[in-house]
Amino acid sequence: MQNPHPFDAATHLSKTGPGEYSGHTHPRYDNMAGPYGGITAACLLNAVLEDARRIGDPVSMTVNLCAPVADGPFALSAVPRRSGKYIQHWAVELTQNGQLCTTASVICANRSESFHAHPGQMPQVPQPSGVPPLDLGDRMAWLRAYEFRFIEGIPDFKGLTGPGPHPARSVQYVADLPPRPLDYLSLTAIADSFILRIFKVRPAMVPMGTVSITTHFIATAAEIAAQGTTPVLGVVDSTRMTENFHDQTMQIWGKSGNLLASGNQLAWFKT
Amino acid sequence: MQNPHPFDAATHLSKTGPGEYSGHTHPRYDNMAGPYGGITAACLLNAVLEDARRIGDPVSMTVNLCAPVADGPFALSAVPRRSGKYIQHWAVELTQNGQLCTTASVICANRSESFHAHPGQMPQVPQPSGVPPLDLGDRMAWLRAYEFRFIEGIPDFKGLTGPGPHPARSVQYVADLPPRPLDYLSLTAIADSFILRIFKVRPAMVPMGTVSITTHFIATAAEIAAQGTTPVLGVVDSTRMTENFHDQTMQIWGKSGNLLASGNQLAWFKT
Repeated sequence: MQNPHPFDAATHLSKTGPGEYSGHTHPRYDNMAGPYGGITAACLLNAVLEDARRIGDPVSMTVNLCAPVADGPFALSAVPRRSGKYIQHWAVELTQNGQLCTTASVICANRSESFHAHPGQMPQVPQPSGVPPLDLGDRMAWLRAYEFRFIEGIPDFKGLTGPGPHPARSVQYVADLPPRPLDYLSLTAIADSFILRIFKVRPAMVPMGTVSITTHFIATAAEIAAQGTTPVLGVVDSTRMTENFHDQTMQIWGKSGNLLASGNQLAWFKT
Repeated sequence: MQNPHPFDAATHLSKTGPGEYSGHTHPRYDNMAGPYGGITAACLLNAVLEDARRIGDPVSMTVNLCAPVADGPFALSAVPRRSGKYIQHWAVELTQNGQLCTTASVICANRSESFHAHPGQMPQVPQPSGVPPLDLGDRMAWLRAYEFRFIEGIPDFKGLTGPGPHPARSVQYVADLPPRPLDYLSLTAIADSFILRIFKVRPAMVPMGTVSITTHFIATAAEIAAQGTTPVLGVVDSTRMTENFHDQTMQIWGKSGNLLASGNQLAWFKT
């Protein structure tokens, strides 16, 4: 049997009871302390996707990273809290040794043809093949689980540009490495793959982290599947950083030029 | 005794036990069916603000509107889920007759002086006194609980502009009516006071509603208090509307020209 893609290995869950699963952190997605938040978010979503009580497809997810996840096994619970005709609300939790680490609310929905409009426009950018991939060297493992091709706003990993403040915005392609066809799980993880804007604005290694991340899946399952292994385009920015917190907005665009997902996060930084 | 401001009456909670409260809908904040989501969100936040176990100030809140709230009494529960040195996570729920209507995650934090930057810029706009308030006539009650002064993108309440699609973006002042000094509660409600972008883009009365709304309180308590009764400036937009859902971004700016709060929501529309 072929080895699974590392992303599938990292998000693999074993059912331990009704709406209950166990999982295990994966070294390929290590961050500074414990796993990269995006892979944790994907594990939480997977607990809903694997549940036979689910109706429709995910349309929104908010993940609250309450405490660090330690390398090792973890337990997940997924509870459908309220189901309507079109929309279903879930509560998902990740615990380790009975201690709460992560909570999420996941919203699924039955969708159908409706009015559509696309007021926002994707930036004009070259094709992925025309943008060189960033050489990240030997940094945190999870960064090497992605291929980043920056069109605008490369974070200054090497500390060559001075203390800033530098502009907050980046425009970049992102793809799983090795390539993997896009689905809700990988889109969830990619939504958290953008370097925190505090580091973009002030390239200094201080304690920092995502506190809460919200992703709205505006595209349908068919559009997400149609993306295949083509890199998605991310546009990420921040409005304001003050007293240990900043906002961070995110848009993810597909090869058709349509928005796949958008959202925002609250990030914390120590000093 | 002077009558309380309607906003304070509508968000008033009576303690019924540890982390448990009762409240009651208020006719001034009626929406099409049940109360306006923003006043419900403020009630949920108030359950955290009134709790002695809270550390620091709110920095983020996600409210999931799972089912309509009916006019009448409701029960709230607020549970601190995990508290760290700087950050505390809460789970809040609103029920009626034991049925879950609304859930929220609220994040509070102890904040202190840190690096600060303001990459995003407030649009250049006239002072509130130079922008006429919108005459909303005899519409839904909650709309008359606010004063809206539109600088750009007035929603077409009168159906005079044709079926669209019209631009999604609005730039507008918002203030409580009668005036009330800004605080976390009113800022929470104001974050949901922007007309759904589906109606801005296609001015047609079809069933529609907010499903989930996230607000990050980037400004500090002192900055929010310094706003007083001066209207805040809202910038609201949407990127894409398709198959019953759209995203909606929001920024709220203070009189200093600094961002007070930002966030986004997922909205549903039937056709």
